[in-house]
Amino acid sequence: MYTDLSENQLRGYRSAVRDPGDFDQFWAATLTEARDAGWPVRAEPVATGLAGIDVLDVTFAGFAGQPVRAWLRVPRGVNTALPTVVQYAGYGGGRGHPMENLLWAAAGFAHLQMDTRGQGSGWSRGDTPDPGAAGPEAPGVTTRGIADPRTYYYRRLITDAVRAVDAVRTLPVVDPTRVAVLGHSQGGGLALAAGALAPGLRAVVAFVPFLCDIPRAVVATDARPYREIRDYLAIHREAEERVLNTLAYVDGVNFARRCRRPTRFSVALMDDIVPPSTVYAAVNAHAGPTELSVWRYNGHEAGGIDDDEAALLFLREQLLDG
Amino acid sequence: MYTDLSENQLRGYRSAVRDPGDFDQFWAATLTEARDAGWPVRAEPVATGLAGIDVLDVTFAGFAGQPVRAWLRVPRGVNTALPTVVQYAGYGGGRGHPMENLLWAAAGFAHLQMDTRGQGSGWSRGDTPDPGAAGPEAPGVTTRGIADPRTYYYRRLITDAVRAVDAVRTLPVVDPTRVAVLGHSQGGGLALAAGALAPGLRAVVAFVPFLCDIPRAVVATDARPYREIRDYLAIHREAEERVLNTLAYVDGVNFARRCRRPTRFSVALMDDIVPPSTVYAAVNAHAGPTELSVWRYNGHEAGGIDDDEAALLFLREQLLDG
Amino acid sequence: MYTDLSENQLRGYRSAVRDPGDFDQFWAATLTEARDAGWPVRAEPVATGLAGIDVLDVTFAGFAGQPVRAWLRVPRGVNTALPTVVQYAGYGGGRGHPMENLLWAAAGFAHLQMDTRGQGSGWSRGDTPDPGAAGPEAPGVTTRGIADPRTYYYRRLITDAVRAVDAVRTLPVVDPTRVAVLGHSQGGGLALAAGALAPGLRAVVAFVPFLCDIPRAVVATDARPYREIRDYLAIHREAEERVLNTLAYVDGVNFARRCRRPTRFSVALMDDIVPPSTVYAAVNAHAGPTELSVWRYNGHEAGGIDDDEAALLFLREQLLDG
Amino acid sequence: MYTDLSENQLRGYRSAVRDPGDFDQFWAATLTEARDAGWPVRAEPVATGLAGIDVLDVTFAGFAGQPVRAWLRVPRGVNTALPTVVQYAGYGGGRGHPMENLLWAAAGFAHLQMDTRGQGSGWSRGDTPDPGAAGPEAPGVTTRGIADPRTYYYRRLITDAVRAVDAVRTLPVVDPTRVAVLGHSQGGGLALAAGALAPGLRAVVAFVPFLCDIPRAVVATDARPYREIRDYLAIHREAEERVLNTLAYVDGVNFARRCRRPTRFSVALMDDIVPPSTVYAAVNAHAGPTELSVWRYNGHEAGGIDDDEAALLFLREQLLDG
Amino acid sequence: MYTDLSENQLRGYRSAVRDPGDFDQFWAATLTEARDAGWPVRAEPVATGLAGIDVLDVTFAGFAGQPVRAWLRVPRGVNTALPTVVQYAGYGGGRGHPMENLLWAAAGFAHLQMDTRGQGSGWSRGDTPDPGAAGPEAPGVTTRGIADPRTYYYRRLITDAVRAVDAVRTLPVVDPTRVAVLGHSQGGGLALAAGALAPGLRAVVAFVPFLCDIPRAVVATDARPYREIRDYLAIHREAEERVLNTLAYVDGVNFARRCRRPTRFSVALMDDIVPPSTVYAAVNAHAGPTELSVWRYNGHEAGGIDDDEAALLFLREQLLDG
Amino acid sequence: MYTDLSENQLRGYRSAVRDPGDFDQFWAATLTEARDAGWPVRAEPVATGLAGIDVLDVTFAGFAGQPVRAWLRVPRGVNTALPTVVQYAGYGGGRGHPMENLLWAAAGFAHLQMDTRGQGSGWSRGDTPDPGAAGPEAPGVTTRGIADPRTYYYRRLITDAVRAVDAVRTLPVVDPTRVAVLGHSQGGGLALAAGALAPGLRAVVAFVPFLCDIPRAVVATDARPYREIRDYLAIHREAEERVLNTLAYVDGVNFARRCRRPTRFSVALMDDIVPPSTVYAAVNAHAGPTELSVWRYNGHEAGGIDDDEAALLFLREQLLDG
Repeated sequence: MYTDLSENQLRGYRSAVRDPGDFDQFWAATLTEARDAGWPVRAEPVATGLAGIDVLDVTFAGFAGQPVRAWLRVPRGVNTALPTVVQYAGYGGGRGHPMENLLWAAAGFAHLQMDTRGQGSGWSRGDTPDPGAAGPEAPGVTTRGIADPRTYYYRRLITDAVRAVDAVRTLPVVDPTRVAVLGHSQGGGLALAAGALAPGLRAVVAFVPFLCDIPRAVVATDARPYREIRDYLAIHREAEERVLNTLAYVDGVNFARRCRRPTRFSVALMDDIVPPSTVYAAVNAHAGPTELSVWRYNGHEAGGIDDDEAALLFLREQLLDG
Repeated sequence: MYTDLSENQLRGYRSAVRDPGDFDQFWAATLTEARDAGWPVRAEPVATGLAGIDVLDVTFAGFAGQPVRAWLRVPRGVNTALPTVVQYAGYGGGRGHPMENLLWAAAGFAHLQMDTRGQGSGWSRGDTPDPGAAGPEAPGVTTRGIADPRTYYYRRLITDAVRAVDAVRTLPVVDPTRVAVLGHSQGGGLALAAGALAPGLRAVVAFVPFLCDIPRAVVATDARPYREIRDYLAIHREAEERVLNTLAYVDGVNFARRCRRPTRFSVALMDDIVPPSTVYAAVNAHAGPTELSVWRYNGHEAGGIDDDEAALLFLREQLLDG
Repeated sequence: MYTDLSENQLRGYRSAVRDPGDFDQFWAATLTEARDAGWPVRAEPVATGLAGIDVLDVTFAGFAGQPVRAWLRVPRGVNTALPTVVQYAGYGGGRGHPMENLLWAAAGFAHLQMDTRGQGSGWSRGDTPDPGAAGPEAPGVTTRGIADPRTYYYRRLITDAVRAVDAVRTLPVVDPTRVAVLGHSQGGGLALAAGALAPGLRAVVAFVPFLCDIPRAVVATDARPYREIRDYLAIHREAEERVLNTLAYVDGVNFARRCRRPTRFSVALMDDIVPPSTVYAAVNAHAGPTELSVWRYNGHEAGGIDDDEAALLFLREQLLDG
Repeated sequence: MYTDLSENQLRGYRSAVRDPGDFDQFWAATLTEARDAGWPVRAEPVATGLAGIDVLDVTFAGFAGQPVRAWLRVPRGVNTALPTVVQYAGYGGGRGHPMENLLWAAAGFAHLQMDTRGQGSGWSRGDTPDPGAAGPEAPGVTTRGIADPRTYYYRRLITDAVRAVDAVRTLPVVDPTRVAVLGHSQGGGLALAAGALAPGLRAVVAFVPFLCDIPRAVVATDARPYREIRDYLAIHREAEERVLNTLAYVDGVNFARRCRRPTRFSVALMDDIVPPSTVYAAVNAHAGPTELSVWRYNGHEAGGIDDDEAALLFLREQLLDG
Repeated sequence: MYTDLSENQLRGYRSAVRDPGDFDQFWAATLTEARDAGWPVRAEPVATGLAGIDVLDVTFAGFAGQPVRAWLRVPRGVNTALPTVVQYAGYGGGRGHPMENLLWAAAGFAHLQMDTRGQGSGWSRGDTPDPGAAGPEAPGVTTRGIADPRTYYYRRLITDAVRAVDAVRTLPVVDPTRVAVLGHSQGGGLALAAGALAPGLRAVVAFVPFLCDIPRAVVATDARPYREIRDYLAIHREAEERVLNTLAYVDGVNFARRCRRPTRFSVALMDDIVPPSTVYAAVNAHAGPTELSVWRYNGHEAGGIDDDEAALLFLREQLLDG
Repeated sequence: MYTDLSENQLRGYRSAVRDPGDFDQFWAATLTEARDAGWPVRAEPVATGLAGIDVLDVTFAGFAGQPVRAWLRVPRGVNTALPTVVQYAGYGGGRGHPMENLLWAAAGFAHLQMDTRGQGSGWSRGDTPDPGAAGPEAPGVTTRGIADPRTYYYRRLITDAVRAVDAVRTLPVVDPTRVAVLGHSQGGGLALAAGALAPGLRAVVAFVPFLCDIPRAVVATDARPYREIRDYLAIHREAEERVLNTLAYVDGVNFARRCRRPTRFSVALMDDIVPPSTVYAAVNAHAGPTELSVWRYNGHEAGGIDDDEAALLFLREQLLDG
């Protein structure tokens, strides 16, 4: 059943999430610091049984220069710099297995699948630790370091996401002028953030993005991962103000307000994990051109392979024809 | 938690499923009839965004000559007859989308993904109807026509599976001497059946196969799809004997008893959908060489991509080095 | 808890379900075709332990002349033509056991309990197959053949329901001028359809009828059987338009718009299987006199025996005093 | 799935439930006291819409002479004293509605449906209060007064069950030499108790009887009503000895040890409410001839209408041919 | 997620619960009758391992003079009459164990924890029976005797609650001019009732109070204990009017309308057991000064220890400084 | 229902968990390192409303000298060095609120409630971060750093537990010769570890201890927290050997094998969170005198207040009479 407002109300919905006065400084300083701690990307070929696709084990400098892993997949035997898709994983997932997720390389793109620090034990494998200090937290990473924007887990992960774009551009197989970012759920939230923070991206794909309009999301669904924030506030009852302040620095609505790149969204009206209104909140706040697929009968899986197919068309338009 | 016998008991477990006296005649007659109703395979190229893989929309003559759909994926630009994997889908799934499931073609095989008649609305799309008459049935197809082996749904589907092997061998891109069959769950059950019934296969891969030792499975799990048989018998209380007789003709244990091809299995000790003992029942009854991966901490997802990776190694040995 | 709109909103609710331009031709053609394929009813006495009620095993010509089973129960020793109730079963049920459901015969009516093709394995037994071709479908029969109104399962079942009225009228024990139809849930939907399509009925009883205002129902509940349609559309994402078109031909609101017979409804405000608004949609669209029992504290069981008692009074008024 | 021991173990299973030394005195004194407080049965005709069955609203003297309600249903127009079935309800149910449960009267028996003191709000209606004092209790009546056999709820209800047999024998329509008792679940437990305590019964029918081998049942299922006892003991941790002592006085195994009347049982191997071993405990302890239907694929609904049909045959043999 | 109206709507919400014309006479007569049946409090010291707190086992005359148990905890070695807190338990709980619930005595109050007749087997132990007659009821005590205000369980329990205040005032360790009442959930409902009915209380603390605006509560949540009333009405369909009439005599909104004592409330916006609107109904109907803590991210546990801490401050203000 | 072996089997059950050859060196080195990084305890009085108990906010040097918080509660006005109980929290909990958990101070003990690093957002509040590096992990802390014993979360937490004993002994209010440790579930596991590692403890109380016989626990329950390990291994399929090696260093069976202090255990036979056999594994491996309370009808709450009461008696014997 529909899990949120009526379709008509959704189309007009606007988030009331606060926009911190120092939002831009916060991220500028964070990224400067990360870049100052940077070092050259490492990329090692991986032996797989794949005849048509080369896979490389990539390590790049993420937040505070901490090493972050990724897989780079490229069509075998290509000699030119390719249009490139940087993909971020959904909650609980990591970069997975070298032989998974072959669509983008099979379609002719260079494809960087970034690992997710401290995750990668839920539905796909990860190999990157999260060295950040961990205060009291509800299970999962959504509340790790949430008492302050500077210690918050997603400050580190978003920085990784932006630095992945920086990193991939230094690789010979990548055409640095034709890079896009893409993700589902948490990955969609990261894509929106990268779309606002990484200079010169050609396009953004954010399927049912997590981390948008968080204050509403927390009171509009009982499902994880938003549930983790609710569980934390149910115990740390005095922390509401502090927590909402931290979350404002990673809210996808605030990134959408600053994103001018062409962005393709999807939303599912029976989604009980990412409430549809929170996706419309990002779409309706977006500063550039947007496309939106509305799936009336789907839950959080949304368009699935149909979303991917549409993304493929969209990215071809944005990256190949541009 | 473990869902079945102890690991030690599992290793020694043997099924008591009955082996009908006319089992071989039943299948010989069924296949002869299907082949007599056969007609040439049709294969139409499909436009996708994939640069490295060609996809063809295949229609072949299945049970009683009824048309069955499939996708054929082949590495682009190949001129030789390829080693080939015929894959069958798990319960509820169909052949899916042309751009899904790229592993086998990316690994250099021709890959036929057979559709599943009357399914394909559960987790992946299908396009093939099941024209069989449908008596009273519990939801799903597991009890469709179960009152008699001749009207039973799985008689038709297993015939499709064997005929898919026949069909793929007639295609120029396929080396007819190097064909293997593979599947997970229901697909694994079909692979076992094809392994016993289709002449000249080089190898069989059956991950957590469904349809093995069915009388035990029905009383050892509450989960679908075995649950459908239980639900049927809970209402049609007088039909136990008749139903168990029908099921004996499609039981994977009976196919394993007749299968001499090298077969790779996997089993998951926390599987609550396909009880582990029913997989051991097939392994322990098998007439040829077998390999078995045991996953202690997995449910029905079993080895996932790790199963696939092992299958890739196994099939290379069986199809390439042979 | 209440599962739908407030009681006040419900009273004013009107469905927006589309009314196909060729709705009447579609059904006229379907019924003509069925009647053309008809043949005489068969009725065999059944030996039961019942001293006061005779039970007959009835077979009549349903959709396309296909045989459909039913039980006819009549008070023993009656010599006159009786007022008659034709009953249809709820989803998953069949005609059941000869000794079940004795109320109507004990109350002095002739009572025909129609079987449900292809169902009858969920909560009561059925004996009638559904010979229609079955394309990809979600479990259950709600999506069988849904790609086209002509292949849709409910086209066949509704035709059976109308033909049951035709059939019962040819039996000597039945007074053909005093026939009513009755059902709960799916049976209520069939009663509404028969009320619109079968000529000369005296009354209709539709308790918490299924199949009304289907487009709303599908997005207003997560429960089966409406869930099956949602599950189908979640996979066959491109099929929404086609599916909604098919469903319009069997929607109870469209039958209610054409039904002029006195009709008794019930609705339960805590029903999570048939949303209350969809019942009001039928009541508020009805072209004749209606009665409605509102059960505030019940789920889909609605009035249960209290609904039956009220129906008995209603049918006595309509069939005996008229 | 099977919920208890293997079928082979079940056949040999014997309960270790204690048999209190004063069991027979306890019940003799209880029944004497109840009979001393007795008064004549009252039976008032009820107006229903039933043409073939007369229904009477019966009130008789139960435990301590407290009034207990029942429905008496008899075939209309009968002039002789009839063989009679006294039926007890399952947990949570009462005597229900006058127009429910017509099978036995339609089959030619006089049929007394006893109400259940203090229940009758779960799945069928009841009208009889339980005036016993109620100490701390887990929800439901299973722990009401459980601290002592004399205050325990089931002492009162079992006494009602025996007194219902006494009462029905005083009615002109009943042949006092041809009375049987019957029930499902809790009703089956009461039937076993009446079978041991009421003199001169011709037969007992106990479908999936509750209240047998209670110490095992409480640790072998998590479902209500046995769960209520577990919940009580989880809080009143010091009361185990006292509670098990009380329960021994109402345990169906102890009644079975004393019952010499022909008794028909049923058991369901997937029953998670009444563990199958506890039914075998009663069957294997029974002092007279027994019949047992084993339903392999059913839960607590067991044989349903098929159990009823078998009971009808059994009762005809025992009551009509004897 | 939020379980009720928006925060803004909640602030303006007013209950429509009926206020019976004889409400005040009903309670005046009930209390007079109870006081007429009274007898002196008994208090026996209990040996515990507590060095700093004395515990007494109290028995006082409750409804109709029936004995009700309680624990009285007082700081050891105190010689003056103390400010006193009378506490009532949540649904299913009793007075518990002597060594539980030490906060109020450790904070310097005399603390009477009243037992709950017929409960005390759910989450804490009870020792007090409920001798009232029990008609048909849904599991639990919420529908015990609900057919009439005079036989209703909560008439007895509320009388106990008022009489506990009377009783505690007769003890030498208690300063009768400085008594407050306090409870969570059911205990909060009882505190509201005592606040209206017991003369001269200094303050009332009602955390997430149960039994307020019951007609709305029953249709706004599926959870127990309100669910018990719904279950009763789902079977006793004819009883709605009678049941709502009974409930009006114990509705916390009617007590709030009559309560002039300073009252501290709490409400939890994710509470699915006591709908937030029903708490606001009591707050907004209250006749005296009120305080309200709103917990946005909590369920029925509400403020937990933070509620207790605020209550301690509130009671110090009301009882110590006044 | 019983969740594990029969009571008889449990009594004889012995764990097969491996005992690493360098177990003692591992812990000796870890503790030496922690003590080398130590610094003096800090203890600040906290203002609460408690009249009879003083509460101090304690910070002590835990693993690697990292600061760990605790509450110290002592009876007000005591001048002598007290027998002392150090308590560890169950999974998800922290040191909680100053006014919670007053039993031990009210009973005359000094009582240190240690905080739990990185937890304290599940059911009670915590204030201590876990600065350890966090690799990929399943939600919760059970798999944090699990790839190596040296990085594993529980190495840090167990060290905190031992250092809490060191710390409390330096406080004037504590008699360092009369210190005991106590905990439920995770707290019980920590108590067992401290019992083996902290010199000179007088007694250990381990209620339904977590972290015992972990290899069996992981395959014997589906519930958290053991489920987290299973979830990790379900994704990191190659890591079984490495993970089991890490876990052996924190397994309570290995601590029990080395613990000679009098130890009181409890076990609950219906516990589905800590399988009863894993508690018996620790009891049966214990090197010193043990007591065991067996709760037949409880889940993981086990004896609750009855366990506490027994612990109070036990600790009085061990700490006061010795």
